Order: sequence, then C-alpha cells, then structure tokens
Amino acid sequence: MIPDLSGFDMAGYRGIAQEPLRSNRVAPKVKSSADYPPNGDKRTPTILEALKKAGLRDGMVVSTHHHLRNGDEVALQLFEAIRSLGVKDIVWFPSAVFPCHEALIPYLEDGTIHHIEGSLNGPLGDYATEGRMRGLAVLRSHGNRYRSIQDGDVHVDIAVIAAPSSDYFGNCTGAIGKSACGGLGFAVADSEYADHTIVVTDNLVEFPCVPWQIAGNKVDQVVELDTIGDPNQIVAGTTVLTSSPERQRIARLAAEFVKAAGILREGWSFQAGAGGISLSFVVYVQQMMATSGIKASFARGGSTKYLVEMLENGQVGAILDGQTFDLEGVRSIRENPNHVMTTPLNSYCYHTKGNFASILDCAVLGATEVDINFNANVVTHSDGRLLHGIGGWQDALFSQCTILAVPSIRNRIPIIRDELTTLCGPGELIDVIVTERGIAINPMRQDLIDSAKGSGLPLKSIQEIQRESEILAGGKPEQFEPDETTIGLVTWVDGTVIDTIRKVSKKL
Amino acid sequence: MIPDLSGFDMAGYRGIAQEPLRSNRVAPKVKSSADYPPNGDKRTPTILEALKKAGLRDGMVVSTHHHLRNGDEVALQLFEAIRSLGVKDIVWFPSAVFPCHEALIPYLEDGTIHHIEGSLNGPLGDYATEGRMRGLAVLRSHGNRYRSIQDGDVHVDIAVIAAPSSDYFGNCTGAIGKSACGGLGFAVADSEYADHTIVVTDNLVEFPCVPWQIAGNKVDQVVELDTIGDPNQIVAGTTVLTSSPERQRIARLAAEFVKAAGILREGWSFQAGAGGISLSFVVYVQQMMATSGIKASFARGGSTKYLVEMLENGQVGAILDGQTFDLEGVRSIRENPNHVMTTPLNSYCYHTKGNFASILDCAVLGATEVDINFNANVVTHSDGRLLHGIGGWQDALFSQCTILAVPSIRNRIPIIRDELTTLCGPGELIDVIVTERGIAINPMRQDLIDSAKGSGLPLKSIQEIQRESEILAGGKPEQFEPDETTIGLVTWVDGTVIDTIRKVSKKL
Repeated sequence: MIPDLSGFDMAGYRGIAQEPLRSNRVAPKVKSSADYPPNGDKRTPTILEALKKAGLRDGMVVSTHHHLRNGDEVALQLFEAIRSLGVKDIVWFPSAVFPCHEALIPYLEDGTIHHIEGSLNGPLGDYATEGRMRGLAVLRSHGNRYRSIQDGDVHVDIAVIAAPSSDYFGNCTGAIGKSACGGLGFAVADSEYADHTIVVTDNLVEFPCVPWQIAGNKVDQVVELDTIGDPNQIVAGTTVLTSSPERQRIARLAAEFVKAAGILREGWSFQAGAGGISLSFVVYVQQMMATSGIKASFARGGSTKYLVEMLENGQVGAILDGQTFDLEGVRSIRENPNHVMTTPLNSYCYHTKGNFASILDCAVLGATEVDINFNANVVTHSDGRLLHGIGGWQDALFSQCTILAVPSIRNRIPIIRDELTTLCGPGELIDVIVTERGIAINPMRQDLIDSAKGSGLPLKSIQEIQRESEILAGGKPEQFEPDETTIGLVTWVDGTVIDTIRKVSKKL
Repeated sequence: MIPDLSGFDMAGYRGIAQEPLRSNRVAPKVKSSADYPPNGDKRTPTILEALKKAGLRDGMVVSTHHHLRNGDEVALQLFEAIRSLGVKDIVWFPSAVFPCHEALIPYLEDGTIHHIEGSLNGPLGDYATEGRMRGLAVLRSHGNRYRSIQDGDVHVDIAVIAAPSSDYFGNCTGAIGKSACGGLGFAVADSEYADHTIVVTDNLVEFPCVPWQIAGNKVDQVVELDTIGDPNQIVAGTTVLTSSPERQRIARLAAEFVKAAGILREGWSFQAGAGGISLSFVVYVQQMMATSGIKASFARGGSTKYLVEMLENGQVGAILDGQTFDLEGVRSIRENPNHVMTTPLNSYCYHTKGNFASILDCAVLGATEVDINFNANVVTHSDGRLLHGIGGWQDALFSQCTILAVPSIRNRIPIIRDELTTLCGPGELIDVIVTERGIAINPMRQDLIDSAKGSGLPLKSIQEIQRESEILAGGKPEQFEPDETTIGLVTWVDGTVIDTIRKVSKKL
C-alpha cells in the first residue's frame, strides 16, 4: 500500500498510529512588545502596505482560512496586492479552497502563486489534476494541517486571517459582524506559529472585541477592508436535506444501524457533516431520540440548524463545533455557551494529548470509493480527478464507530472496488459501509456484527454489495491507468504519505 | 543600578525595552494521541499514582497555580505524595504563594522541596530571607513567569493544575464547582509547555466541560480529590474597602488626579487591584463616572464586586480579568460574556505581539518604597525582608499612566527614600506618586504636569513629600545594611536581573 516516494523528501505511511516523525514541535521566534505600538493600535491602511511591512518576498508561504467558504473575497484581494507588488512564486497554504477560488487560476498562470499547498477541489482540483500547477498539491486533513504547522513540516511566513469582527489590537471573532461565519478555528494554528499575522476585517469594533477566538497577542497588523466576503455565500440561509429517495434510504439505514447496534443510547455522541445524507441521518436520529427520550452528551459540528435545534431542546448537551454551515449555527455560537468553537487542535490534531475525534461514539461520513478491505477514497473520482477536499475526513475516522454512508453506484460506476483510485483512509478505521442496498460491517468489528445480528437490517458482506452493484452497472468499474507524473500527495494524520495522485490528461 | 551577578548564570538588566535574550521560544515535545486513551478518559485514582506515571524523580520542576489563593489545599497534598514516594529536591514553581503555604516549610526542611522558584511573601518570604532555603528565590512577575516558560528559561517537568471543574479528558474551568475561583489563566503557560500536566479536581463533570479555559488536549492525567481547597479562603465573600481616613484620602486624591489630568474621559480604561486603597479608588471613580455620565471601555481585574457592579450597570464595557477576588467576580465570569478570563500572555507577557497592560489609560498600584527618581520597590520592607509577592506589578507599570498610591510613612518609616532597599520597577515607567500629603508627578511626564496644573490638587515635588515625611518621622530612614549572601533575584519582565535580595539574620 505504500506509494513510491523516490524523489520526494517525505516519509511513507507506516500504519495508523506510529511514533511521531519529529521529537519536538517547532520553536517560533520570540517577539517583543517593544516592537508593537504601546497603545495597542496595530492598524495598517491597506493589505498592500501590510504585506510590505510584513516583509513579503518571492517564494514565501502565505496562509488563509476557509471559514468564509464559497463567499471568501479575501484570497482574491490578497493575491491582487501580491501581484501588484511584483512578488512571485508564493506558496498559498489555505485550510481549504472553494469553487470561488477558481478566480485565482490567473495568479497561478502568471507565476504570482507557485502552487497551492493543500487540499483542492472543483476547478482548482481539475487544474492540478491536469498537471498545470507547478508544485505538488499536498493534501492534509484539518488535523494534519494543524500538526504540519505545529511540528514544523510547513513554515507559514505570513498568515492572513479574515475576521468578521476585530478590534485594533487584533482580538477577533467570527461570531459577529455582517460577514459572521461562526468560528475562526482553522486559523488558530497559523496565528500561533506564523512569523507574521495580518488580520483583515470588514467590521472593526471597539477594543476589546470580546469574547475573541484569536487573541490579538498573536497578531501583527490589522487591516480594514470594505468587504471580506459575500454573506450569502459564507453561510447558507438554511441547510438543505437530500430529496433523493435513495439517499434518504441510506440515511435511514445508518440511523437504524446505530440504534440496532446499541450506539444510540443515553449519553451517546455523534458527528455528521453537512452533506445531504449526513443531514438526513441527523434528522432520523433526532426523531428516534425524541421517541425514546434518549439524550446525547454532545455532537460535533460543522453545525447546522438541525444540531442547533437538538441543543436548544436539550437533545444534545453541547456542540463542539469546527465550522458553521448555516445562519442558525452562527446565531447559536453567539448565544449559547454550550455551543463551543473548537480548533483543529482540540478536535482533530493527532499530535496532541488525545483529541475529540476518538471520543465520539459515531461518525457518519461520505466517500468516493471503498475497497473490499474497507479502505476508502474521498478525494478523487474513478477517473483520477482530484475533485473533493479532504476536510477532516481522515481525522474523524478515529471515532468509535465510523460509518461511510454512500450510494453503491454513482454515475453508473460501482463505488465498491477491488482497488481504490486513491487511498485516503485505512480500512481498519472504517467500521461500517451503509449503502441503499445493504449494510456491510467490517469483519474486524465482531462486536458490531454481534450487536446488529437479528435486527432485521439488510446486513451483507461488502463483497455481496459489490457483486450486486456490479451486476446493475454491467460489470466492474474500469481501473484508472495512472500517468507517471505525480501531481499531489495524500498525507496521513501523522504527516507520512499514504498515496500519490497522478496527472490526468485533459479531456478532449 | 545593575546588580553584581558574578556567580549567577543570569543576564543583568539592560533597560526597560531591550531585544529578547533568546531568538526562539522553547520547542515542546511532540505528543501523540496514540499514547492516550481513545475514549478520552485520562483519570488516575490518586495524585501519588499520577506522579509515578508522570515519571517524577529527584530534582524535577513541579508547578502549581495560585487561583485558589489562601484556600489552596493542593500544594500540601502534592508534596505529601511526593514525600511518600521518597523523591527529593523538587523545585516548586508556583505562580504565587500565600500564607497557607507556610505548611510547606517542613518539606523544605526535609529536602522534599529544594527551593521555591518564584515570588515569596509572608512566612515563606521570611524563611527565605533568613537564608534558610537552599536555592534562590527567583522573583518573576506574572507576565515574566509566562515568558520564562515560553522562552525556555524554566522547564516545567510536571504541572499540577487545580481545577474547580474538569471532565475526564481534562477540559477544565475555574468558573463552576464548589471550589470555583473564577479563572485558571495562571496555569495556561504550564499546560502549554510542561512535559506532563496533571489536572486535579474536586468536581468531575460530564464530558465536555464547557466552556473550558484549559483544553484537555494539553492534559495528561485527571485526578479526583475530595477537596482542592477551602471555598471560604479561595475567594472572599466580599472585598473590604479601607476604613483608614488616611488611605481613603490617598484613594480620593488618585481619583481626583485622573479626573484633573483628563485621563478619566469617555472610553477610558483602568486597572486597580484588591488592596484597600485601590478598591477605594475604584469606588471614587465610579461615583465620578456616575455623576458625569462617563463610561470606561474596559477595566482590568483582578475582579471584585465593585468592577462587576460597573460592568452590570454599563459603566465599563468589559472586564479583562486575570484573577478573581470575591464571589461576585466568580458569578460574573460565569454569567457575563463581557467578563473575559485572560491569561498572563494576553495581559502581561512582554514577549508577545503587544499586551493589554500598555493599552490601559491608568493603573493604580501599591509599593513598599519609592526613591526620588520614582524607582520603586514592591517586595521587601526597609529591613530587607522579602514579605510581598511581585504579582503583575512590573507588567502593569507599562500602562499609559502608572500611579503608585501609597502612604508617605509606614510604621514610622518614610517610604520615599534616597535609595531603595530593593529595586523592582524603573522610575521611567512610574508616572505619579500619590500620598496623603500630596501628589508628585514624574518630571519626565511634562504632559501630566501641564494637564494637572491649576486643578487645586496638592501637587508637590517628590523631594517635598520626602522632606515632609522625614520631618514627621524624625529623620531619614535607616539604610538597610545588606548581608553578602544573595537569597533571591528580582528579574525584569524580559528575564534579566534588576536586583538581588540579601540575607537578613533572624531577629533576636
């Protein structure tokens, strides 16, 4: 399973829980208050001036966060400023990219950006897959991105933090302001370890901005912008459930499974994302919990109105949130002290003294492909194209029961395969595959097999589901024939490389 | 002014705002979730077992915090356990000691504790002053203690954090529980940088303990104790104003000065401690603000019911708190999102990108001695005895207007002297001395002299106040004749040594 890494200065995957590659975390530079304004006012009029003051030069690593999601208007303003300074070959290190960032392709083309160091998707994923980006797309999960900064794999020269509210000192929060996005957790590692941190905001508030999520003590400069993003794209007005009967069936089966297996019990905990199936899963378990009077001790976000409803009616004790998907989530973070904004260190980072992911009784996630040993892919399609971000998917696999809830066939291609296009997560961490045609439990989890026995649920072997879907699809999926050129590396939570992503020539 | 440091591996004082001595912060060990229980349960039954698991051995540095103040019952239980393990020569690194810690003298005597690395007062200060402690009392302000851990001057092997509430993972808070003390900010540096962190609590709550101030991701073990302290001694039921007419006059003069000098204006900010004069100062400015309708943007704690009252009636916009002195402060922290628990990094640490201390318009502090150049002492008496903790005094000197509000004579000894017994703070940071017989403005602050002119306040030169008090006291105070043996070092906020403290033979 270990990819050929000759030519890359990266260690290969060694198993799910090995010793760290480094013995010590990075040692950031000592800063001195003597070099900052005594009155605390760190404002600089423009991004351009702030970048100059920060000593921006060719080849630097510049980071941003993705809490503004598809509404982000900071990255574009940032690279416009960098281009106008004539600076080249910047390594852009975002915590994730969104379709809106297609607008940055010209900056890759003209050499302003050397490459994007991170998870790609949509148009930028396509761009990289076709071999058009100069450097490698090094895919890191949310927890692994934090770890890579903390352990010193990636040195951030300048962090640019979009803040929906900030004071002049740089104390900032995502919970208030016209561009409110909920939390700022994905920028915390950057603020802790970058040489230079610039907060940009379109809502300067009086000192002190309380409560802050990022402390101004970690911030070098504050820049006021007219806008940091489009509020309608930052969070959704409402989050939409799946209307597909097949996907609803998958969500219902997943919910019935957690009940049958005894996971849904008093004080349980769960995580489910903002995808249609995951959201519907939450709605199903909410109904089951309402019927039986069972309460969850906590749920992990990304938060949506469904989780908020459960928090407010007492069905969950707390939301440990990582990001916010709708307006109800933002409101709840602002109002409810039991809705806590975490950071990837709290939730996901593997190189800490434990994290929240493994405490969860259950995580319901998606995948693009699964193999018969329960290994899974979440970033590429079967044609090799890098079209999905890796998010916190690998980190969340550590839950006590990880369920991949997926349709057995997508675009007429069976998703259960003999061999994955790209390995992202090892099967030993994936406990259950729920499809519309049945539920396959990992043979390593005899305990789950025993507890679900006699439940009346359509339990099948993964091979059975594979066979059925192959019959329907008219045969096994074609195996992608990789090009020799590597365009991306998929890293494991500890920083080792678990697979490579190869170039795919442009479709004609 | 620079003390003789031959024989000590410490740099001498170089001025108030010099380059850091080290270029990089310390690089803590990389930890791995693989070494912690996946279900998050880090409980160990006893302190003794926890210390064994932590690998305690002779000569280690063990830290505690002082938020339980004179009610602390953790240090004693800790050193009982260490003694019963037969471990010797521990360096105890508390964030402050209180009179209750006199109970630890036997542990110093029998070699369990080698020395206390930190600020001393009362019985332990006396003990050290008489040369009975083996190592040096290295006095560090709250900000400097944080800095010393962050920059690597002090390596904490094991941090023991008393938490009024914690879950099994180690997420903990001081705001709730029978031993509620408000915040846990003084333990944050320890949790960030210690090799091993043990949380001890007498109130284990369900996971997750929200909102936490210290994240369980920084915690190795959690130990449940019957008690961590005496609630009646942890915080006062109420904080008591001074009843001395002389001290009330000092407080009133200080308040009238900030008004006359234009410091007390719309949006101003201030810090005042829990001493009688400081509390009375707060009450006077509260009255002035009520009369004139002026509001403060924020106040710095330690919080008391007087600050809480001002927060709740809208006279201050926010409390940026460091520690809590009474029950009203604890309640407010728990209930009011504008009452924020800070850490010494936020408030005081000099080696960060600015801190709150210098943003303050005004800080009202105490002192044991002041010299005619406005240099001041806050730790020793004129007989050389180390009787007061240094607290955040040095850090707070950086405010825009630092006022020492002190009686001109104490125990018949004038406090304004030609030469200090111990130098703690340089005069260039001390702007005003307010005594019952007049107000002396530092000649370096012509702006303050100009704005207070014509106010009718008893403005005098410091020499005038000195002369008056010498006449009353019957002459200049005797100059303490120091012994040759150094028993303590007073360090500046950047870690350099600003003065030494000498041995004083036991009174007969």
